[in-house]
Amino acid sequence: MRLKIKVLKFSAGRPVAIISEALAEKASIHVDNRVLIKKNSKSIVAVVDVAKEFVGKDEIAVSSEIVNQLSLAEEDYVIMELAPKPESVWLIQKKLRCGKLNEKELAMIMDDIANHALTEAEIAYFVASVYNCKMNLSEVHDMTLAILKSGMRLGLKGTIVDKHSIGGIPGRITPVLVSICAAAGLTIPKTSSRSITTPAGTADAMETICKVEFTLSELKEIIRKTNACLVWGGALNLAPADDKIIQVEKLLNLDPEAQLLASILAKKLAVGAKYVLIDIPFGKNTKVDKKAAEILANNFKKLGKSFNLKLDCFLEKTEEPLGNGIGPVLEMKDVIKVLSRESPCYKIEQKSLALSAKLLEMTGKAKKGKGISLATDILNSGRAFEKFKQIIQAQQGSLDNMKETRLKHDIIAEKNGKIKEINVKKINTLARFLGCPVDKSAGVYLYKHLNEAVKKGEKILTLYSESEAELEEGLKFYNKFQPLLIR
Amino acid sequence: MRLKIKVLKFSAGRPVAIISEALAEKASIHVDNRVLIKKNSKSIVAVVDVAKEFVGKDEIAVSSEIVNQLSLAEEDYVIMELAPKPESVWLIQKKLRCGKLNEKELAMIMDDIANHALTEAEIAYFVASVYNCKMNLSEVHDMTLAILKSGMRLGLKGTIVDKHSIGGIPGRITPVLVSICAAAGLTIPKTSSRSITTPAGTADAMETICKVEFTLSELKEIIRKTNACLVWGGALNLAPADDKIIQVEKLLNLDPEAQLLASILAKKLAVGAKYVLIDIPFGKNTKVDKKAAEILANNFKKLGKSFNLKLDCFLEKTEEPLGNGIGPVLEMKDVIKVLSRESPCYKIEQKSLALSAKLLEMTGKAKKGKGISLATDILNSGRAFEKFKQIIQAQQGSLDNMKETRLKHDIIAEKNGKIKEINVKKINTLARFLGCPVDKSAGVYLYKHLNEAVKKGEKILTLYSESEAELEEGLKFYNKFQPLLIR
Repeated sequence: MRLKIKVLKFSAGRPVAIISEALAEKASIHVDNRVLIKKNSKSIVAVVDVAKEFVGKDEIAVSSEIVNQLSLAEEDYVIMELAPKPESVWLIQKKLRCGKLNEKELAMIMDDIANHALTEAEIAYFVASVYNCKMNLSEVHDMTLAILKSGMRLGLKGTIVDKHSIGGIPGRITPVLVSICAAAGLTIPKTSSRSITTPAGTADAMETICKVEFTLSELKEIIRKTNACLVWGGALNLAPADDKIIQVEKLLNLDPEAQLLASILAKKLAVGAKYVLIDIPFGKNTKVDKKAAEILANNFKKLGKSFNLKLDCFLEKTEEPLGNGIGPVLEMKDVIKVLSRESPCYKIEQKSLALSAKLLEMTGKAKKGKGISLATDILNSGRAFEKFKQIIQAQQGSLDNMKETRLKHDIIAEKNGKIKEINVKKINTLARFLGCPVDKSAGVYLYKHLNEAVKKGEKILTLYSESEAELEEGLKFYNKFQPLLIR
Repeated sequence: MRLKIKVLKFSAGRPVAIISEALAEKASIHVDNRVLIKKNSKSIVAVVDVAKEFVGKDEIAVSSEIVNQLSLAEEDYVIMELAPKPESVWLIQKKLRCGKLNEKELAMIMDDIANHALTEAEIAYFVASVYNCKMNLSEVHDMTLAILKSGMRLGLKGTIVDKHSIGGIPGRITPVLVSICAAAGLTIPKTSSRSITTPAGTADAMETICKVEFTLSELKEIIRKTNACLVWGGALNLAPADDKIIQVEKLLNLDPEAQLLASILAKKLAVGAKYVLIDIPFGKNTKVDKKAAEILANNFKKLGKSFNLKLDCFLEKTEEPLGNGIGPVLEMKDVIKVLSRESPCYKIEQKSLALSAKLLEMTGKAKKGKGISLATDILNSGRAFEKFKQIIQAQQGSLDNMKETRLKHDIIAEKNGKIKEINVKKINTLARFLGCPVDKSAGVYLYKHLNEAVKKGEKILTLYSESEAELEEGLKFYNKFQPLLIR
């Protein structure tokens, strides 16, 4: 069916096409049906909405996703057909019955996700199937490959290294580590996520001082200048299928292991990393306990081997935030204190050095056992801070960009004692109530760490927020759930 | 935040609100975030889209779902707030980890589904959780209650009976049974579904001769006049949570048993039925085998008992279509042949009588063992056909409304033999390829049934379709998959 387009000046987050009721009736098309829209050799699958008066019966209104994909201009004509249910829907059904998917089948699912041929609900079924039925390592390998193939590659030269943390613990290691490694001559094209379950992802924290969204060619230019980058991965189209899956996982804060493994490895492969370090904190209130951390590390190593990567894991018991700040701005302030040698900021420095040392040794930049002294030297000499400033500049930012928070409220100790517990999950929720990660300057500042002594009347926390309502909500949450245990 | 509304003249199938990029940035709202929109004491949760030029920064464009729910007019003002993630999201996560949900928790999920507070993806997670983790009978009871409470009730007087088939087999029993029971003085407010997995649901078939979508008060008037109705249940808001769940199940053709039980019983309770008969066909290529049918029947009886219903099940081995027609128009033609006494139409007559007899006996309209003769008498005397015509008239229809199909193609036997198998799943798929249920006159006409002799050159099937392309697709499918086995 040939239809004249009407450009909708909005992005619906997914391709949306609106047709008239009259046309819908004639063509037996219903709201939420999928249609295939074609122009010359390009095509896109869109979900249909039906309008009463908004479009003519020979017209189709299309959202900006469709305009961009098909390079449309006002007055253009397109061909619209009913899109059949993609075969991948039946493959998802198979996985939901705990069947095993092969390489070709997983590639079909990932391609259909990347091409918007599956709805969010269908992707949710896929996530649930992986969550409930698990995947064996050969399936995970095939899914990794499928995610990789659905996206772009960076195509860099040099000794490319990468690092990933399975997260859950506030505190930014990555900017320090990237600065040290790049200063040592390694290429480290670090793409990070925005916050999924914590108050800040590395991308959220970096965004407080510089841009983090770039095109692939802009990114290459940044890396050419600095050997490194610290950007948001979602804008790069390196793993579009995975980016969509993560959006759907977020709805329920799900993170099935098979998906986690494939998602991380695919992104490392897409940037061309040959040396990969996975940071797996474990302990009470983190994502995994010690045993699960060991199993996960083992699976990461096996999967890395199947792709000929030099992959190692860093396991450490972690039961409190790594720095003092919790929230994008506050965490970035910790990073700058460490890089500028102003203060070690609790465990941020120590862990950044340990991870950097491991990468320096894996790549042969330092001899076995000598990584820590090389990393420490690069940090102490100011070379890491210089590198960081280069990266920020290349990413069109400045250290002066950081915003001060509008409102704050101190929490005072009501008795003498020792900090017996810092509940990371509750601290994360507290920071979210205060406005993280949407308000980048919101969050929590922690003056005391585990086992430190506290005197009655001493400041133990400061809550930061941009709005009175959120500050109040945060305070209410704090009083009800007491994230710190003093005894 | 106070915003002026802009009425969008279209229905998005779900409440959609569009705000400007400038406002989104200021309010830290992202595409696909949920907002709560309020006007006086009414409120609705909507998903946000972001527009470049379409709306002003103090405006919010709202789809017709929102306009209706809040009774809005152009130039009205509303209050918009960020809606927190509903608690039911965490309850769905709990079920996905195979936890048990209690009555209150299930009520929260069903209410949020009915109130559009959950996205389709979140509903898909719920369906997947029930599919993979199952539910025990007390959970099913509570879910039934939750579905029931989320909707409207019919509130009728009299001896109210109802019937449901778990389906999968083409051929309409319901219109014959309803006509017989209503003619016998029973009240039978039959609401049916449209096709989910078969070429036609009862609502699709009825729609070939009369209206099937009514408001609750129109429905009461039809029942007052005729003791019965034969309508589509989806328009009545009897079980809005379940209606949405079924939409999401359809994406993957899922039908988890717990959901099936709760869905059916809730609708029977909503129309006030006291006597319920469940038709469970079993056998090769149906939804269940004999053992599963018996387990299902047992669960239906237990669940019915927990609601003080008189509930019985009708189990019969069924391995072929019940009539000659497959598709809405063709199946309705079979019904009319039976009611008008023109022809018994294979098993349609026999099964309709058996089921009617059971309901007549359950309600005491006939003595034990005498139901079949009463039912047969009502059918043979023409009283059932008269009742059917009354219902059609009350539903603003006529027997003359049925449309002839544009294209047909006969399939001729290539050898002598016997019909050894009629693969119901393949026949259903064939009818769908031909255009069912969108094109109501499309479908398959079956001249021969199981174990009947066939002579070379004899017609065995006719394929009906509205378009050349679909007829060709159907023929291709027929030749490749051979739904009939002649030997």
